[in-house]
Amino acid sequence: MNLTTKIIITAIVFFSAGIGHAQQKEQNTNCRYTKTTSGFLIVLREGDDVIANIEKAAKEQQIPSGNFTGIGFAQEVTFGFYDFQEKKFHPKTFQKVEMGNLTGSIAWSDDKPSIHIHGIATDDKFDAYGGHILALKVGTGSMEVYITVNSDKLERKIEQPLNANVLQLPCWNK
Amino acid sequence: MNLTTKIIITAIVFFSAGIGHAQQKEQNTNCRYTKTTSGFLIVLREGDDVIANIEKAAKEQQIPSGNFTGIGFAQEVTFGFYDFQEKKFHPKTFQKVEMGNLTGSIAWSDDKPSIHIHGIATDDKFDAYGGHILALKVGTGSMEVYITVNSDKLERKIEQPLNANVLQLPCWNK
Amino acid sequence: MNLTTKIIITAIVFFSAGIGHAQQKEQNTNCRYTKTTSGFLIVLREGDDVIANIEKAAKEQQIPSGNFTGIGFAQEVTFGFYDFQEKKFHPKTFQKVEMGNLTGSIAWSDDKPSIHIHGIATDDKFDAYGGHILALKVGTGSMEVYITVNSDKLERKIEQPLNANVLQLPCWNK
Repeated sequence: MNLTTKIIITAIVFFSAGIGHAQQKEQNTNCRYTKTTSGFLIVLREGDDVIANIEKAAKEQQIPSGNFTGIGFAQEVTFGFYDFQEKKFHPKTFQKVEMGNLTGSIAWSDDKPSIHIHGIATDDKFDAYGGHILALKVGTGSMEVYITVNSDKLERKIEQPLNANVLQLPCWNK
Repeated sequence: MNLTTKIIITAIVFFSAGIGHAQQKEQNTNCRYTKTTSGFLIVLREGDDVIANIEKAAKEQQIPSGNFTGIGFAQEVTFGFYDFQEKKFHPKTFQKVEMGNLTGSIAWSDDKPSIHIHGIATDDKFDAYGGHILALKVGTGSMEVYITVNSDKLERKIEQPLNANVLQLPCWNK
Repeated sequence: MNLTTKIIITAIVFFSAGIGHAQQKEQNTNCRYTKTTSGFLIVLREGDDVIANIEKAAKEQQIPSGNFTGIGFAQEVTFGFYDFQEKKFHPKTFQKVEMGNLTGSIAWSDDKPSIHIHGIATDDKFDAYGGHILALKVGTGSMEVYITVNSDKLERKIEQPLNANVLQLPCWNK
């Protein structure tokens, strides 16, 4: 093989690799969810921020409200236990845990998506920990979130004196 | 400010507060759920009995059958582990815990709603406990329950010799 | 009562019992699920293999994809924590536990159903354990699984270098 051929082959390989990499990146950043019969399915990858991605889907698809469940592997999950006297969360972070279950709801606050998630994490000893999720980053593997969409827009509002962020129901005429 | 003005202002404030309180109470007792695209959304408040409120929605809306998930904060949750030899539940109560997940189903027994709920509670150390729920009262904040309705009526029946309360399937012609 | 009568009665009783038993067995093996408004409801009995039964429903009903939650009592559940360096699961088995929650998804791999399930088990002390489920057998009582069907077929594919089995999304045109 002469030098010219080598250069051409190298160029082709590099170029192809470049396309492949660009396509993969495209897929990684733009193909995180798909429409389903009753809502949306989100499949996230290592390093993805779960709350930010649910908010992104809610905004892009203008999801009026909804609820979801999910499972996957977390690089890091931070739970917060709310102290109603101090009016703040006491947080704790767990690393490299399975999310045995995620459950939550999608609503809106001041034109921004408001996501409420609880979850149960399980470690390499299979012990379980959980509560209200403040932050969740996907680990090796993936995280699947199954959203059921409701066509009525719902708001979440901070209620005093507890400072609790509560999903507001329309006083529906039964 | 003279005394008459003070009395009038006090009266107005009191009266308004009275209206506000009445409205809040109205909302608290009558506006616990709303219809969604695939079922119902229940949002409960401090002190509410979760099982009684799901039964109330099932009766008022004549939900033929359904399943649900949910999350929220519990003032008190009682789990029961069934002893199939003694044919009774061994109960244990946990207080001031997050419900990391609620999962269950709605069916009917002798014309009364029959609710089957399991759940995972997490405490201020984020440790998890759970099982079959015998009683659940909402704590500070709220409890959200997302019901998916099925249009076919289903019954639950106590089966011997185990005394297990089992959801009965119609022998559906596939 | 003469001998002939006794034999006839015994034969009838035996024969009827035989029919009854056959019918029960028929029901036990063939009536494990029913169609619901948004998918399928599976109710399993003691000794049933949960993953095999979800696969059976997926095949028989040609479920293109879906997600589910569930609850029930387990005779035995085996969780596996995946070691991404060794590329294998470290398993642990728990016996006679409530399944506080099951959450998962249905997809396909090489024309076979591919079921992904996580779960949280709780013991007679109400302590919780969980993670990725490798095997699950129903205990005394029953196991309920609520499936939401999605009409688009989805595939699961093993991705390298992690060897992770990931749900593939179509790059959906938003």
